[in-house]
Amino acid sequence: MKVGILGAGQLARMLALAGIPRGIEFVFYDPNPTSCAAQLGEFICGEYDDHQKLDQFASKVDVVSIESENIPVETLNYLQKHVSVHPSPEAVSTSQDRLIEKKLFTQLKIPAPAFFAIDSAEQLEQVAQQHGDTLVIKTRRFGYDGKGQAMLKKPEQANEIWHELGADSLIAEQFMKFSREVSLIAVRGQQGDIQYYPLIQNLHQNGILVKSQTSLNDPLQSLAEDHAKKILSELSYVGVLVFEFFVCGEILVANEIAPRVHNSGHWTIEGAATSQFENHLRAILNIPLGATNALFDCTMYNLVGNMPDSKAVMALENASLHDYGKSPRENRKLGHVTLCNATPENLSAVEAIIKQ
Amino acid sequence: MKVGILGAGQLARMLALAGIPRGIEFVFYDPNPTSCAAQLGEFICGEYDDHQKLDQFASKVDVVSIESENIPVETLNYLQKHVSVHPSPEAVSTSQDRLIEKKLFTQLKIPAPAFFAIDSAEQLEQVAQQHGDTLVIKTRRFGYDGKGQAMLKKPEQANEIWHELGADSLIAEQFMKFSREVSLIAVRGQQGDIQYYPLIQNLHQNGILVKSQTSLNDPLQSLAEDHAKKILSELSYVGVLVFEFFVCGEILVANEIAPRVHNSGHWTIEGAATSQFENHLRAILNIPLGATNALFDCTMYNLVGNMPDSKAVMALENASLHDYGKSPRENRKLGHVTLCNATPENLSAVEAIIKQ
Repeated sequence: MKVGILGAGQLARMLALAGIPRGIEFVFYDPNPTSCAAQLGEFICGEYDDHQKLDQFASKVDVVSIESENIPVETLNYLQKHVSVHPSPEAVSTSQDRLIEKKLFTQLKIPAPAFFAIDSAEQLEQVAQQHGDTLVIKTRRFGYDGKGQAMLKKPEQANEIWHELGADSLIAEQFMKFSREVSLIAVRGQQGDIQYYPLIQNLHQNGILVKSQTSLNDPLQSLAEDHAKKILSELSYVGVLVFEFFVCGEILVANEIAPRVHNSGHWTIEGAATSQFENHLRAILNIPLGATNALFDCTMYNLVGNMPDSKAVMALENASLHDYGKSPRENRKLGHVTLCNATPENLSAVEAIIKQ
Repeated sequence: MKVGILGAGQLARMLALAGIPRGIEFVFYDPNPTSCAAQLGEFICGEYDDHQKLDQFASKVDVVSIESENIPVETLNYLQKHVSVHPSPEAVSTSQDRLIEKKLFTQLKIPAPAFFAIDSAEQLEQVAQQHGDTLVIKTRRFGYDGKGQAMLKKPEQANEIWHELGADSLIAEQFMKFSREVSLIAVRGQQGDIQYYPLIQNLHQNGILVKSQTSLNDPLQSLAEDHAKKILSELSYVGVLVFEFFVCGEILVANEIAPRVHNSGHWTIEGAATSQFENHLRAILNIPLGATNALFDCTMYNLVGNMPDSKAVMALENASLHDYGKSPRENRKLGHVTLCNATPENLSAVEAIIKQ
């Protein structure tokens, strides 16, 4: 079995580390010649519109998947003529555009923030005046880790934000006062079977995920599953899909979906019966899904910008270090640490080392 | 951190799969160009006496280790002039020669079968006559998986066995009637700290390990640890060492030691707080050892000669498939399956698939 992954960053790397023990081989495709997954399989360095290289890629693999929702849909459509692509280009396309995504939430009666399509600075100012409260302004496409976002508190900011965000199609969303941010990782197989992981509680700083904790027996688990099931079924989705929610009172408000394995699910490597990475591979290869129950209460910390002393982290009890082998850069995700059944002392020790 | 491994088979492959997530890089050295670990790092294909290639290998890594006790000691001695080698050439040398190994057991007062050095067919016949009972005849060096062994039941077989086993130095060992075969996996760090995994009960067929089961809370655990500690301390050992015993009544009789990670410890990947592979890397890199407690009751089956349908194995509850990516060959270890907290039905299901 040979799997092709578009994108060769840390998510592709962790997919490969889950698949190689099962005898699955990998071919990675990425325009970046220094991609950190490259060493774990065959690597094709090419642009996403290079049909000759894409043909070569497709000819080598049994199925193609992605590690990022920002792979051009044209690339997926092109590949689909030659090889199976999971999740489908249609599903990826939905999550690439925040406006289409929000419309889908509304269509499926999943609570979501009020939203407004914005196509000019004037329109943004007008919406801000009518709405009268804080708005979150986002580019419709290609946002990640808080990039392509701004907070609009007064209508007078409209012109500045419009230009700051590239003077292209935007979406204005009602700012939600939430008590928690949670994500649900779900996986759907080719026979329509679905498995859900326990809800995860997430902490972001400056738009970047810094900490995820399993929330076992969360009272909102089944509500989250209901919402995710609607999306998975509507899109005839195959693979792992992650649904991010704001918790507002006892309601889950949809924030966004990601058509891929997700940073908030890294704890599943040590902490779940089957990791999100293995289950994504099982889904796209039409192998029965593995159990998704948590084996431990887990906490994951992202290692962002620079790596701590790896020996110091490995010396900590209950801590599993993951180093993606990337060169340091501000705001770049370089690794993570997962703690299973950690004591408060374990958590403090990790936090102290990370902050050094 | 860059680790060099002499030998690039499945043990090297599993060392790499344990180390890569921790940011450890690998260089493999093996005369076999189709070695199954090669894809997981840099690969140097060379003979063990090719000093030019060994120099190149040594210059690339921080520490050298082995995946087989049959790496020539001359190679280890040569490398040690340029780079740290763990375990030491002296320790490896001891386990390469069954006679030296048995003498060490005796010196350390560890119960072992009676043994006799054999240097001719005549001497073998004479020993057989004096001993009067069944003897296990083994080559002193380079035996594995039951190869280089024969049972001598009558003195008249001496000449035939002497020639069958290569007409070179042999060892004749008292045949032990045992109730169980167990192994203890131990790991010693550079500061002399030692950790032990729970005892493992092993089943061999035709000299090949076919099944290993954790024996949690085994009454012989601390006795096994005492024996292993003597060896580890005597050899100033660094890394994982495996001690195989026969259980005879309430006594552990030493069978052999292996200066490396071991087939009977594959269950530690899923089933222990820290796998034998990660702990070996921690030891040789001078990182504090990880906890060795079992998280589950585990059973491992070797996949020998040909691989079962991998999708069928992955469909089984509680089963983790490992496929080494090797081509099938009679008696060749191609993979293994580990079951965690398996029910009798789980075990039967795996056994049925393996036997197909």
